[in-house]
Amino acid sequence: MALGGNALIRKGEAGTIEEQFRNLKVPVKQIARLSDEYRVIITHGNGPQVGNLLLQQENCSLVPPLPLEILVAQTQGEIGYMVESTLDSELMLLGTDTQKHLVSLISYVVVNENDPAFQNPSKPIGPVYTAERAATLPYPTVRTPKGYRRVVASPQPITIVEKREIKRLIDMDFIVVCCGGGGIPVIREGRTFCGVDAVIDKDLASAVLAREVGVDIFLIATDVEGAALYYGGPEERFLRKLTVHEAAEYEKEGHFPAGSMGPKVEAAARFVKAGGKRAVITSIETIEAAVAGKAGTEIIFD
Amino acid sequence: MALGGNALIRKGEAGTIEEQFRNLKVPVKQIARLSDEYRVIITHGNGPQVGNLLLQQENCSLVPPLPLEILVAQTQGEIGYMVESTLDSELMLLGTDTQKHLVSLISYVVVNENDPAFQNPSKPIGPVYTAERAATLPYPTVRTPKGYRRVVASPQPITIVEKREIKRLIDMDFIVVCCGGGGIPVIREGRTFCGVDAVIDKDLASAVLAREVGVDIFLIATDVEGAALYYGGPEERFLRKLTVHEAAEYEKEGHFPAGSMGPKVEAAARFVKAGGKRAVITSIETIEAAVAGKAGTEIIFD
Repeated sequence: MALGGNALIRKGEAGTIEEQFRNLKVPVKQIARLSDEYRVIITHGNGPQVGNLLLQQENCSLVPPLPLEILVAQTQGEIGYMVESTLDSELMLLGTDTQKHLVSLISYVVVNENDPAFQNPSKPIGPVYTAERAATLPYPTVRTPKGYRRVVASPQPITIVEKREIKRLIDMDFIVVCCGGGGIPVIREGRTFCGVDAVIDKDLASAVLAREVGVDIFLIATDVEGAALYYGGPEERFLRKLTVHEAAEYEKEGHFPAGSMGPKVEAAARFVKAGGKRAVITSIETIEAAVAGKAGTEIIFD
Repeated sequence: MALGGNALIRKGEAGTIEEQFRNLKVPVKQIARLSDEYRVIITHGNGPQVGNLLLQQENCSLVPPLPLEILVAQTQGEIGYMVESTLDSELMLLGTDTQKHLVSLISYVVVNENDPAFQNPSKPIGPVYTAERAATLPYPTVRTPKGYRRVVASPQPITIVEKREIKRLIDMDFIVVCCGGGGIPVIREGRTFCGVDAVIDKDLASAVLAREVGVDIFLIATDVEGAALYYGGPEERFLRKLTVHEAAEYEKEGHFPAGSMGPKVEAAARFVKAGGKRAVITSIETIEAAVAGKAGTEIIFD
């Protein structure tokens, strides 16, 4: 289950800690109930959180700056704690806490150092700058509707380093929170790992994990009910089922925007193409209904 | 094995990420070799790291401030990643990586909301302020040799929330990194947990974990060879063995300063008094020798 950013911060919110804990109850209450019947792995985004850490870092010259992969690690601690403690509380309220083992893991994800994304950084992160300020920055920026933002590489996830551990934990009936923010990006250097300045799409990383662990259902929870054609327009048509072939066609036609529904449909399709049974995209509010087959967009092989 | 702050940042260093990774190799190379024969749980401090996050937060009004327990969680992610990836690399270099399972867990630790520490915050954390600035701050401060610093409560750790999970992981031969920074402090509120603005001494929290998991050896690694009488003076006498009774006497006589050797001796003594077999305080450089009984201060029952 990959939780989108709106599980923590909703549109228009400043993202105070109270707001984040309150928002988190919506998916977590459902997960607590589902965990009675299902073994659950929870992954999550970290966009606003890592952006805030970058913003703080840039505004405080008193502290040695940390590379991006360390900031991703910090958000794994932050959000992992929030998800785990909220779930712990909800399980206690249900009275099922004593049966459940629950852990939040630091996760890192291998990327290829020759991934073309490193030559063409495209993922905007962190603060918004004026054109003048952007010109002085030591890293590439891109113009967005709000202003200029730093762009970093978003390479393809290849494998989750902790996949064997996660598999064993799930086999033993643990609930596992992991792969936060798409995982801490690392490349292999000989026989060691080395962190890199990049971010990994959390839905694509979750699809890799789902395949490596061999889950039955890969669920992506976001801020809309599912995928749609002509999204937001008068002809909008919600898609209840979508084959991987249709998905590829619709994507070409521009129905699923990059950085939004695009990578979600792509992640779901990759999971199904690799032999996964069920992939569903749904909203944070309808996780249980989607698991039951009553909400969301199902991506199927044909 | 509780790693002191000098495992990451040494005296006189700014604490760049390169320094932290380089320093970490000293204990981690030893841990990698030890893990061939021993099952290892690694805990660690977070003083400078949480201080930096506080400093950044105070210097950036653009981001909603996070409570202290969330900053502790962030350092668990940060340092957990550094320890795990360094250990991963060292295990690969030894060629024993394929047998080992390795996880870094978010950990929270229950404290008592009636702990007297909450009425008398005493642990200095974060930036140093002038007297004028300190007077304007919304929280208590204390005067230190460097200037004024914020003080927070440092309540006694009661139980590690993830103790059952950690025990099961160790039983299955996992290497576990956990209880970073003494753990995220939480109080029980009815049937749920609630984070509190406090920090827990990492050696005392590690002693609780060591007892709850039932380890054979509780090792505290720090920047000195062990406990000494008249430390730093001409009559300094290193203590090779120390009974819990002697420890209590020497502590009363002021040989083990608060915030330094004091809590380490106290943590080791608590572990032994609760039935623990071996407790050793040693330096980061001599972890292997201490495990072999050839370095450090052993705290014994009588």
